[in-house]
Amino acid sequence: MIDTPALVDQYCHGVLRTELGLGTFEAHLGRGDRPPAPGTTFFDTQTGFAVRRWCPPLLGLEPHCPPARYLARRRELGVMESGRRLLRGSGITTYLVDTGLPGDLTGPGEMASAGDADAHEIVRLELLAEQVADTSGTVESFLGNLAESVHAAAANAVAFTSVAGVRHGLAFAPQPPGPGEVRGAAGRWLAARPVGGPLTDPVLLRHLLWIAVASGLPLQLHAGLGEPGLRLDRTDPVLLTDFARATAGLGTDLVLLHGYPYHRHAAHLAGIFPHVYADLGPALARTGARAAAVLEEILELAPFGKLLFSSGAHGLPELHVVGARLFTDALSRVLGGWAAEGAWSLADAQRVARMVAAGNAGRVYGLTT
Amino acid sequence: MIDTPALVDQYCHGVLRTELGLGTFEAHLGRGDRPPAPGTTFFDTQTGFAVRRWCPPLLGLEPHCPPARYLARRRELGVMESGRRLLRGSGITTYLVDTGLPGDLTGPGEMASAGDADAHEIVRLELLAEQVADTSGTVESFLGNLAESVHAAAANAVAFTSVAGVRHGLAFAPQPPGPGEVRGAAGRWLAARPVGGPLTDPVLLRHLLWIAVASGLPLQLHAGLGEPGLRLDRTDPVLLTDFARATAGLGTDLVLLHGYPYHRHAAHLAGIFPHVYADLGPALARTGARAAAVLEEILELAPFGKLLFSSGAHGLPELHVVGARLFTDALSRVLGGWAAEGAWSLADAQRVARMVAAGNAGRVYGLTT
Amino acid sequence: MIDTPALVDQYCHGVLRTELGLGTFEAHLGRGDRPPAPGTTFFDTQTGFAVRRWCPPLLGLEPHCPPARYLARRRELGVMESGRRLLRGSGITTYLVDTGLPGDLTGPGEMASAGDADAHEIVRLELLAEQVADTSGTVESFLGNLAESVHAAAANAVAFTSVAGVRHGLAFAPQPPGPGEVRGAAGRWLAARPVGGPLTDPVLLRHLLWIAVASGLPLQLHAGLGEPGLRLDRTDPVLLTDFARATAGLGTDLVLLHGYPYHRHAAHLAGIFPHVYADLGPALARTGARAAAVLEEILELAPFGKLLFSSGAHGLPELHVVGARLFTDALSRVLGGWAAEGAWSLADAQRVARMVAAGNAGRVYGLTT
Repeated sequence: MIDTPALVDQYCHGVLRTELGLGTFEAHLGRGDRPPAPGTTFFDTQTGFAVRRWCPPLLGLEPHCPPARYLARRRELGVMESGRRLLRGSGITTYLVDTGLPGDLTGPGEMASAGDADAHEIVRLELLAEQVADTSGTVESFLGNLAESVHAAAANAVAFTSVAGVRHGLAFAPQPPGPGEVRGAAGRWLAARPVGGPLTDPVLLRHLLWIAVASGLPLQLHAGLGEPGLRLDRTDPVLLTDFARATAGLGTDLVLLHGYPYHRHAAHLAGIFPHVYADLGPALARTGARAAAVLEEILELAPFGKLLFSSGAHGLPELHVVGARLFTDALSRVLGGWAAEGAWSLADAQRVARMVAAGNAGRVYGLTT
Repeated sequence: MIDTPALVDQYCHGVLRTELGLGTFEAHLGRGDRPPAPGTTFFDTQTGFAVRRWCPPLLGLEPHCPPARYLARRRELGVMESGRRLLRGSGITTYLVDTGLPGDLTGPGEMASAGDADAHEIVRLELLAEQVADTSGTVESFLGNLAESVHAAAANAVAFTSVAGVRHGLAFAPQPPGPGEVRGAAGRWLAARPVGGPLTDPVLLRHLLWIAVASGLPLQLHAGLGEPGLRLDRTDPVLLTDFARATAGLGTDLVLLHGYPYHRHAAHLAGIFPHVYADLGPALARTGARAAAVLEEILELAPFGKLLFSSGAHGLPELHVVGARLFTDALSRVLGGWAAEGAWSLADAQRVARMVAAGNAGRVYGLTT
Repeated sequence: MIDTPALVDQYCHGVLRTELGLGTFEAHLGRGDRPPAPGTTFFDTQTGFAVRRWCPPLLGLEPHCPPARYLARRRELGVMESGRRLLRGSGITTYLVDTGLPGDLTGPGEMASAGDADAHEIVRLELLAEQVADTSGTVESFLGNLAESVHAAAANAVAFTSVAGVRHGLAFAPQPPGPGEVRGAAGRWLAARPVGGPLTDPVLLRHLLWIAVASGLPLQLHAGLGEPGLRLDRTDPVLLTDFARATAGLGTDLVLLHGYPYHRHAAHLAGIFPHVYADLGPALARTGARAAAVLEEILELAPFGKLLFSSGAHGLPELHVVGARLFTDALSRVLGGWAAEGAWSLADAQRVARMVAAGNAGRVYGLTT
């Protein structure tokens, strides 16, 4: 009843190019870097059950078949062919790919070709800064190269993304740091930093955000469930309120990624600030059978023109599938249900479904779908 | 199955006396003072869809007809006649009207007559203080007149209301400020204040709350979604815990208005403190098709004798309709559902529905319905 | 469809040995120590309605019969016989009993015999420390006896429990206090303390937690809805993040009790840390008709091997019944529903139900069920 012919995954990563054993595959179903508790497995999670529901049929197996059987079939087809079948079965027609994670992951071009879809690049600000630091000898050259690098990246990318919030907490000062402050922070960071060392200085992270804001490209900010080490309440998107106020009217859109379990707060900000957008990202794949309920919660306050779809998937094409299928299934059930009970008209339900699935992303990122 | 013959809207405002164009009408569907994002409209929100569901039939149109057609019909009938039809179709039998907002709004008498209902006044403390300041020459006369004014207002009003929390945050000191502190704050405020200037001093705001507590009238405190500029987490009703403890046993009831998205916290306080009550206010009109789900959440911890109904509507009679119809529809579905599955008896469900719709408010405000 | 032949109540208290009048019974349905508001009763709560749904049939009455009739029947049977019928009708096959609350309550042996079930003891750390303080003359003897007492208790108990969090807030320093700090705090506490005085010193509370961690027994930590006087947000389990990190890999499991309304946060921690477990405890009995919805929320992020059942019941065997029946009913509806819509396989749903009802607790506490 409610269909979504186009589906823009506005935030995901590539997939692993290597064959995976059962244990490695299982590790990608968990969150964080710790093993499952003794006597338990990450297959016994909503994510594990969702993978077993949606993916086996795409490889010619029964839904909910045992993990070992699924992995055997996956190896039998090979990582390339199973990836192709999975991505093409996801329903995703455009991938926006954050290329800033380490590992042997496919890039946008490969995602497009494997998935028979369009793909564009999202540039991760922190990685960009680390790469610039690796090749800059002085504070002055670092800062100059950084501005130039962001500017150059903006020419090819559809968005910038920042993990400042989920790595360090979202309670940062909302205003841009002053030039002297930035030079001082850069000097200290460069002096202490080994090659490849991560950017953790809060002044430089804020500086980066403001360079990105100046570029005019949409800026994606991670919120909600972040790095396992970080206290969850420090990722609450309400902490971005002052930053949203400080950036209002500058012409750059902010996209709050994920948000769960504070997705109602993200929806609130999307309702208050014209330049703020929200999605649920990997929250749907994390909550599996509860995806429709979580989607309903963000649909309370988010204006329907301000909500986007993303899978947030990383490494396994199964996570792209699960993110997309849970989303379209949930959207159809939720909006179809409201139409069935008369709360919405069916025409509105269909229109909103297409907006959230693809139309809003097309407008925000200037895609020609 | 579950009907509510009487419905007390225990917190709302009047409606605009002027004809509205499409743009002005739309602006009243959004939150805050910012326009919708380019390419979007506030009609594409739960509030917009709820208005289109419930209001057109009251003006002789099909549910979900296009906004332009609805507005044309509204103008054809005129603002008075459409207001009468809407208010009379809301099911509200008593309006408690906060008269403290600016704009050309109808007062309680006009609400009663247009809506064929009872109406009573709620006095907004901050406005009262600002009016007293406008006409008081000295600190001593200001403080004396203020106490007298609150006392006089208590004779005609059914409740006081304060927006201290959603304007400045609910994390204020729970105890009454000392006399010297109050005099000092009053002196500074009066000296710096232009005529009509708003009350923002936290000491005076607390002083006002405690004068109101001494009056014995129920005191309504805004919590949850407040002024768009305020960080949402600063409106969490848990921040009122110490104030609730400080006012326990004094004989004055506190009514926590709205609460969303922290309505479970408001319900918690209503369960712990005998003198604390809660409602969902405009949260139902904001969340539209989700009203039943939000109502279910507050019904977890709130004792059934401690929950009230209000629309929180302001400006558009459509918002009174939507608040009331979403509430009675949600109440009927939620309580009827629990009765149908055997969790509650049907008699209890009917009894609780009447308590929440009118009985509790009648007891708290001493109404003779 | 989804049945749970074994049911381990991993955290509860004993039941009162004395006959109860209507008022005393009603008081046990409320939270905290305040009376119901004038014109209201604690029977008009989700807990009251749930008791009236599930308990009368176990005493030969109709569901939802009036409270007075139920109490009359209860007295007619006598407190012993009605307790036996109720506990045996709960479906609980093993009780883990926190013996650390005051009052004339049955112990584990009596619970086992009345309920025709197994029972084991949980030792409450704060009470243990207070008992040791009552009989220790010096700081050195107190600290020595405390360590010895915890060690001795570990031999007979299946777990330790601490109310440090809901009594004082969960935002305590995560690391063990140093020896000098502990001696200083003990000296001050013992010097000022009347016999029987409660342990409130935060340094000693942390010291106790770390002695318990060293014992290797599972350590249960109360979170969420706690002492009525405490601000709810200070019981948010996210505040335990650093303590969880500090205790990771030491071989001692942490069990987060209750959690509501922050149960999604508890589930998050159970998903991140291998040694952290979660349950909903009395949240189900508190939310009654909403138990299935609350259970669904914790099932979003909690790995299915990390979720436990407890009633958290205290004083009334009715609360054991309600906790257990709401849980098994909710579990069957939620998991059965997911199986019916194809999100889960039926075999998985049945397997997970048995894990959550008993299997996980058996593994964590080393029970031989």
